Amino acid sequence: MARKRSLDDGPVLRAEILSTASRMFYEHGYAATSIRDLAEAVGISSSTMYHHFTNKQDILHAIILTFMQDFNDAIVPVLRDLTHPPQVRLADAIRLHLEISDERRPELLTGNPFRNALGPEQQRQVIALQRAYHQAIRQTIVAGCAEGTFATDDPTMATMAVLDMLNGVREWFHKGGTLTRSEVIAHYQAMITKLLSPS
Amino acid sequence: MARKRSLDDGPVLRAEILSTASRMFYEHGYAATSIRDLAEAVGISSSTMYHHFTNKQDILHAIILTFMQDFNDAIVPVLRDLTHPPQVRLADAIRLHLEISDERRPELLTGNPFRNALGPEQQRQVIALQRAYHQAIRQTIVAGCAEGTFATDDPTMATMAVLDMLNGVREWFHKGGTLTRSEVIAHYQAMITKLLSPS
Repeated sequence: MARKRSLDDGPVLRAEILSTASRMFYEHGYAATSIRDLAEAVGISSSTMYHHFTNKQDILHAIILTFMQDFNDAIVPVLRDLTHPPQVRLADAIRLHLEISDERRPELLTGNPFRNALGPEQQRQVIALQRAYHQAIRQTIVAGCAEGTFATDDPTMATMAVLDMLNGVREWFHKGGTLTRSEVIAHYQAMITKLLSPS
Repeated sequence: MARKRSLDDGPVLRAEILSTASRMFYEHGYAATSIRDLAEAVGISSSTMYHHFTNKQDILHAIILTFMQDFNDAIVPVLRDLTHPPQVRLADAIRLHLEISDERRPELLTGNPFRNALGPEQQRQVIALQRAYHQAIRQTIVAGCAEGTFATDDPTMATMAVLDMLNGVREWFHKGGTLTRSEVIAHYQAMITKLLSPS
């Protein structure tokens, strides 16, 4: 059995708890994973676990919030950088979206059972971050339409279509398949440019 | 308390078990819902439940398989009907995909925790049905490219993009919002036509 680790490990241990929990929630589901399972997988006692997190819901919330904050911090400034034209900003955002989603796949705990497991205030925080990202994409599309490089009848629906296309990739893209990640990124940049092109 | 119902209800009861189970799995997750919870919600004893299904995994499998068979039976023949041009077939498939996904939303139990809860043979059946649908969409895109009404560098990736766009709709579309379902369908038909248009 793994050595039981103590409180001294601090932030490193906290990060390891989150990483192990995201993997277990992703693979087995949230309800199927107990605090005891998590403590065992990390090699700590349940009481050390409770020193870091009040309950399992807090762990889920920390995983989702940390991921989404990092994701927005990486991409939203790129979308808002007015020194580049909308088409370039969107192409960069597409690349970052696909790269980060691929590298941190188990932290993307989306869908109903995960969402419903959060408390109302936790859900509010997650929705606010999703909305900020959605808005940054939407405003880039609107800016491209104003410039004449993009065209769409409905920027909100075009935003949803673009985000759903990008979020879908993590479900079918696997390293070692017939396509490299760079090839997928180039194709998605081309498809989305076409979807938004003036006809 | 609801009257306990007997075996006599037969197929009606079986359908009611599946419908209640899909709603509870969809809202709370698979692991969080026990056979006992299900029996109680339907108003039957656990032993009546076990008369219909061997275990909870069988219920999940029946929900997913029934949905996917109905879905494919409704859409694949439309995609394969060579009396209509590829563009018309694809537009009809888009409409049916969005209508059926909206009407039977809780039966769409997708994502890792659900998939991983199935046994290997059950997973194989589900994947075969998904692949058949994917292939029918892909062949319609390829037929449109041959005709010159569609164009894409990579029909497989275009198929994934189209399916991910369509599957994403159920996560954000809600009746009573600013858009009607028919408006969403018309927009998605237009966006996908543009995505596949010869440039």
